[in-house]
Amino acid sequence: MQADIADSAVSLGAIRDAARALDGVVIRTPLLENLDLNAMLGGRLLLKAENMQRTGAFKIRGAYHRMLGLTRGELKRGAVTYSSGNHALGLACAAQILGSSAVIVMPSDAPAAKQAAVRALGAEIVLYDRDTQDSADVVAQVIADTGRIEVPPSAHPQIMAGAGTAALEVLEDAGGPLDAVLVPCGGGGLTAATAMLMAEASPETQVFAAEPFLFDDTRRSLAAGQRLPNPKGNRTICDAIMTPIPGEMTFAINRDLLAGGVTATDAEVRAAMRFAFEHFRIVTEPGAVVGLAAILNGQVQIAGRTVATMITGGNIDTTRFAALLGETT
Amino acid sequence: MQADIADSAVSLGAIRDAARALDGVVIRTPLLENLDLNAMLGGRLLLKAENMQRTGAFKIRGAYHRMLGLTRGELKRGAVTYSSGNHALGLACAAQILGSSAVIVMPSDAPAAKQAAVRALGAEIVLYDRDTQDSADVVAQVIADTGRIEVPPSAHPQIMAGAGTAALEVLEDAGGPLDAVLVPCGGGGLTAATAMLMAEASPETQVFAAEPFLFDDTRRSLAAGQRLPNPKGNRTICDAIMTPIPGEMTFAINRDLLAGGVTATDAEVRAAMRFAFEHFRIVTEPGAVVGLAAILNGQVQIAGRTVATMITGGNIDTTRFAALLGETT
Repeated sequence: MQADIADSAVSLGAIRDAARALDGVVIRTPLLENLDLNAMLGGRLLLKAENMQRTGAFKIRGAYHRMLGLTRGELKRGAVTYSSGNHALGLACAAQILGSSAVIVMPSDAPAAKQAAVRALGAEIVLYDRDTQDSADVVAQVIADTGRIEVPPSAHPQIMAGAGTAALEVLEDAGGPLDAVLVPCGGGGLTAATAMLMAEASPETQVFAAEPFLFDDTRRSLAAGQRLPNPKGNRTICDAIMTPIPGEMTFAINRDLLAGGVTATDAEVRAAMRFAFEHFRIVTEPGAVVGLAAILNGQVQIAGRTVATMITGGNIDTTRFAALLGETT
Repeated sequence: MQADIADSAVSLGAIRDAARALDGVVIRTPLLENLDLNAMLGGRLLLKAENMQRTGAFKIRGAYHRMLGLTRGELKRGAVTYSSGNHALGLACAAQILGSSAVIVMPSDAPAAKQAAVRALGAEIVLYDRDTQDSADVVAQVIADTGRIEVPPSAHPQIMAGAGTAALEVLEDAGGPLDAVLVPCGGGGLTAATAMLMAEASPETQVFAAEPFLFDDTRRSLAAGQRLPNPKGNRTICDAIMTPIPGEMTFAINRDLLAGGVTATDAEVRAAMRFAFEHFRIVTEPGAVVGLAAILNGQVQIAGRTVATMITGGNIDTTRFAALLGETT
C-alpha cells in the first residue's frame, strides 16, 4: 500500500462519498458542547461523541465503508482482521449488516466479555497464543485457508475515508470556525483522515495527534521526520491506542499535514474521564479522552478559540469505569 | 392557578413558541438510538438525553422560559424557588443568563457539592431546617422581604410549555410514528406537557407516567380519578421524583390525557442505569431512568413498536454513580 494511493483517495470528495454511503448505517453522533463550561474555559470546547457510535467506537465507519467496496464474491468469502477491541466490534457489525462474515484473530487471553461481544455480532473468533505466535501469521493463515479479505484497522484509503466522515460531521456541526482538532492517535488512520479533510475543507484548522505519555511514537516521528517506534516495556491505561509505531501510509499523510503531537499521562487521562462524566454525562474509555486530557493539561490553547476533540470510544465495563473514576490522581 | 389556564396555555402552539424562545439557549439534546439493541428488542427504543442538557437536566427549559415571561421590573427583583436539585440548577442558570438573580431555598443538610454547584451559577442560597421549618414558609418570607417572583418546578403554563419543548424535539427527531412515550414523573409537569403535545400533534402516541415503586401517586391517582398522596415513610434512590402528591394543575391534564402509569423498583432502576451505560454510554441519575426501567421490566411493550422515554437528568457524582452501578440487584 503506497501513500500516494491514500493521497488520491482520501480527499474531501472521497469522504463526502463515504458519508453518503454510511448514512442510515452509522449514527451521526452528537457534537457535545457545554455553554457554562465554555464560559469557564473562555473558549468553545467541542466533543465528537463517537463513544455513542454503533458498537461504541468510530471504527465501524471505516470497516463498513471498506466492506462496501468489496465485490459480491469477496463479501461471500468474508473479512478477517486482527483486533482485540473496537475494530473487531466494528468489523463484526459491518459484516453482519452486509450479510457477509468476519473472522477476528484475538489473543487467547482477551477478556471473555470482549469475546462475547464480538460473537454476539455474529463473528467467528480465532484465538492465538501471544507468546508463541504472531497475529499477522495467524491472519495470513486464515487468508490462505479461506480466501477471506483482510480489513485492517486503518491502512486502507476506504477505511480512512470512512473514518474521515466523523471529522466531516465535526466541521459541519461546529457552527463556526474551528481553530484546532485533537485526535487520539494509535495507528493514525483517523488522525490522517481528519488532517486530509481539514487541509482541503478548513485549512485554518490545526490538527494534532494526541497520544499517551511514553506511547508518543507519532509525536516523536513528526519531530524526527521519520517513523520511530515506541520503546518497549511501558504501560498505559489507553489500551485502544497502544501501537508500536506509526503506520506507513498514515504517517506519510500526518508528516505533511499535522500541526504537531500532544500527550497525556494516565493520571491526566483519568481526570479527563471524570471531566467528561461531570460536564458532559458521557461514558468514555481511557484511550478516547487523550485529546481532551491534552486540552485540559494546557498543551493546546482553548481561551479565545474553538477546539474540538474526538472522543473515539466508550467500550469499557462498569467495574473498570468505576475503578478509573475512583482512583485519585 | 387553575387547570383551565394550563389547558389554554400549554398547546402545541405555545410549545412551538417556547422552542423558538429557547433556541440557542438550551441544547437540542440527542435522541439516542442503538440499532443493534433494537434488533435484540424487536422494536425501536429512543432515549431523549436530557441528562446532556445544560445544567444536566431538562428543568432549565421551563425555568428559563418562565423567566422570559417576566417584566423588566420583575427580572430586576429576581426569582425564588424551593429545590434541592435539578430545578435549582436550571433556575440559577436561567437567572444568570438573563442578568437577573435567583434565591434558592434549600434544606440545611443539602449536599455541599449541590450547594456549590448552585452558587457557581451565581445564585444565593437560603438554608432552612427541615425539622422546624416549612420550605413554603421560607419561600413566602423571601417574597415578602424582597418582592422576588416565585418560579415553581412545574405548576405554571410557561414552565410546562418550556418543558414541552423536549417532547416536541422527540416527536421531530423520531423519524417515524411514535407508539408510546414514558416520562419520569415527579410533580407531573413534564408528563403533562408531553401529554398535551402528543394529544394535539400525535394523538396515536400513548403517554405514560413512570414512577418509583411506592411513590406512584400519579398512577394511583389516575386509577382513582382523584389526587392521592404517597404513603409516608418509604424510601427510593430516585430522589429527583420523590414527590408527596400529584400537582393540582398537572394532574388535571394528566387525568384526561395519560394512557396510564408504570413503576419500577430501585433494583430495576439500577439495572436501567447499567443498561444506559452499556448500550448508550451515558451517565444518568436514578430518577431519570424510571421510564427506561419500566420498558425493560415489560410494562410497556416494545416489540414491533417505537417507544421513547425521557432521560430527565444526569446530576450524580462519580462516587454515587459507581456505587449504584456496582450493587447487585
